[in-house]
Amino acid sequence: MKKTDLICTHCEKIFPISDIYPRCDNCNEPLEVKKVTKGTIKKGNPLNQTILERYEDFFPFKGIEKGICLNEGFTPLVASASLAAELGVRTIYLKNETENPTWSFKDRGTLTGIQHAVRLGYKKIGTVSSGNMAASMAAYGAKAGLKTFILVSADLPPEKLNPIAIYDPALIRVQGDYGNLYYESLTIGKKEGIYFINSDVPFRVEGSKTIAFELCEQLNFAVPDYMVVPTSSGGNLRGIIKGFEEFKLCGLIDRMPRIVCAQASGCAAIYTAQKKNHERISRVENPDTIAHAIENPLPPSGNEILRKLRANDWISVAVTDKEIIHAQRRLAGEGIFGQPASAVPLAAVRQLTGQGVIGSDASVVLLISGSGLKYTAAFERHDLQISDCRIEDLGEFMK
Amino acid sequence: MKKTDLICTHCEKIFPISDIYPRCDNCNEPLEVKKVTKGTIKKGNPLNQTILERYEDFFPFKGIEKGICLNEGFTPLVASASLAAELGVRTIYLKNETENPTWSFKDRGTLTGIQHAVRLGYKKIGTVSSGNMAASMAAYGAKAGLKTFILVSADLPPEKLNPIAIYDPALIRVQGDYGNLYYESLTIGKKEGIYFINSDVPFRVEGSKTIAFELCEQLNFAVPDYMVVPTSSGGNLRGIIKGFEEFKLCGLIDRMPRIVCAQASGCAAIYTAQKKNHERISRVENPDTIAHAIENPLPPSGNEILRKLRANDWISVAVTDKEIIHAQRRLAGEGIFGQPASAVPLAAVRQLTGQGVIGSDASVVLLISGSGLKYTAAFERHDLQISDCRIEDLGEFMK
Repeated sequence: MKKTDLICTHCEKIFPISDIYPRCDNCNEPLEVKKVTKGTIKKGNPLNQTILERYEDFFPFKGIEKGICLNEGFTPLVASASLAAELGVRTIYLKNETENPTWSFKDRGTLTGIQHAVRLGYKKIGTVSSGNMAASMAAYGAKAGLKTFILVSADLPPEKLNPIAIYDPALIRVQGDYGNLYYESLTIGKKEGIYFINSDVPFRVEGSKTIAFELCEQLNFAVPDYMVVPTSSGGNLRGIIKGFEEFKLCGLIDRMPRIVCAQASGCAAIYTAQKKNHERISRVENPDTIAHAIENPLPPSGNEILRKLRANDWISVAVTDKEIIHAQRRLAGEGIFGQPASAVPLAAVRQLTGQGVIGSDASVVLLISGSGLKYTAAFERHDLQISDCRIEDLGEFMK
Repeated sequence: MKKTDLICTHCEKIFPISDIYPRCDNCNEPLEVKKVTKGTIKKGNPLNQTILERYEDFFPFKGIEKGICLNEGFTPLVASASLAAELGVRTIYLKNETENPTWSFKDRGTLTGIQHAVRLGYKKIGTVSSGNMAASMAAYGAKAGLKTFILVSADLPPEKLNPIAIYDPALIRVQGDYGNLYYESLTIGKKEGIYFINSDVPFRVEGSKTIAFELCEQLNFAVPDYMVVPTSSGGNLRGIIKGFEEFKLCGLIDRMPRIVCAQASGCAAIYTAQKKNHERISRVENPDTIAHAIENPLPPSGNEILRKLRANDWISVAVTDKEIIHAQRRLAGEGIFGQPASAVPLAAVRQLTGQGVIGSDASVVLLISGSGLKYTAAFERHDLQISDCRIEDLGEFMK
């Protein structure tokens, strides 16, 4: 690995790059890899590159270790003229992260996390997740040939267990306080030599930077006015922000987008803290939203996101399940079927344009975080239309 | 549209490019767009192009019509050293078509089909499908704002209906002989002005060419020895073959791969005809396989595929459900979870290496056609491993 350090996002204490415990022993806030201040995009054809190779200057790695990669990222950016007209803004773009190896954005951070693990010599990895991240880690752990521990809650239904189990990880239903497992797993991992690549560990955050990098390329380096991201742990949003920051430090773009942290109102720790002008987030008691993928009651990077929002006059929004379901169907009308969490940005922008916060000249990017096939229970919330017809009546029926 | 014709794949009779009836009125065999004999790959960054723009020379279109596109294609090619070692061949590559807008290869042909429809002025489109193609057409029809008829069999379960209905097409359960609906829909479509973009219509076949084009780029124009494709209607395989043929005609590659037409033994019309040395395929009575996506009892391009196999000494293989399930799990062990049809190529290659047909020096590409999330009933066929543990025992458990 190239020479660099981890730095605390809050108190700026320095830690070695080889540290796998992702939080500061001084203030308990998350660490991150020191920002890159000099770099360019590698030349070449993305069809023959991986994201780590194309953006190599922005990672402490040289190339890809041992072929442990599924060619994640390089996802489409799709413009929607009809959504832009409907919402009264200049342009709307959908960054479709469902086109990843396990059909969510998580694969980017899993890639960088496992690259770090393998370079440090770890043979065992793990994660605490019941959804996108669990499937992603199980898939990459299988590809890498590493022992992979996936810790899920004891009551997870088969619909969610099976798409994780198919990759043959050590899949463990944990009985007890699942809410504490994020911290518990890190402690056990450090002791037992298991690298827990949880939601916001520094090297998972590194992977999410590539969403910003690709966006800049896809928009020919014209930074969007608003970047809207469904937010749970805060790890993905931290990565996207860091990506834009590093491209700006390196002179590849000349400004930052205004960030919109989009949460579900049934579990909106960051939004609530910003609205109440609190310095720190508080745990959400009894979280309840259809957007399960972003239902983290105590986001481990919540305070750091809150600091960023406050320092930059950025925005947080909370949207109801009703708004989410409406937005999910509207996105399908654009040909993109995302899981409920993926619809949160569209619902958020609808609020913000309605309030006049986002104006008619704005360009807006919505992050579509994961595939709708991952959470089929949402179908019950839609009024789906199906007709019946005899084959001999078809000609008449279709007139 | 650029000036070209349709030509019958069998008797070579010529038809106008504006024809939407996909078969010859002389011999009833499928038509295709005349082969391109002069062309190059457009320069530029695939992150800022669509497949139609990059390979524009190979289509009768100029660019993209009205933004009707979801940035399909440009899917990963992932090498598997461990599969190559296990099967005793030089290299195995997995072309991962699950990373498309509706998570199957069908989106490529839907794109080109709808581009043709819109350029001809059609406001209504349709398809006959109960799976990947139905979802793909529904998504693109929604994006295009076209009236989209999706004809499915009367007994289709909700698990398959819902992911089509979410895009709001005119979704019709058809009572009667579903087997005849391919031809019936084409006749009604011609009469009622509905462009039925069925499994092997010429402009759907055109879209599948881009799989071959990308493969050539991804392999730096070193053509693989074997190209293994799960085969049902024959449309996708026809497109892949045509893509390699056109690149060869244009001097971009110097030879063809040896094609392997991989079928499920419970529905193997092409394999059976080749084995029996028949001139034409026969309808499979009572088709029965877990690979529903390739369960077409009378492939409309079956005779044309058979002609190609015989003329070139290419190969067809049939694999059992047991072999398919085994291969599906093995692919998941490589981090790629495909639907059962996607596992048919791996099962086929296992047969062919076992028989010594494919030798130790061979390079082999397997087409992974669609996402495993599309057919979750297959989980029941796997022995999935899940453990339980109390949180206080986790440290001990993971030792």
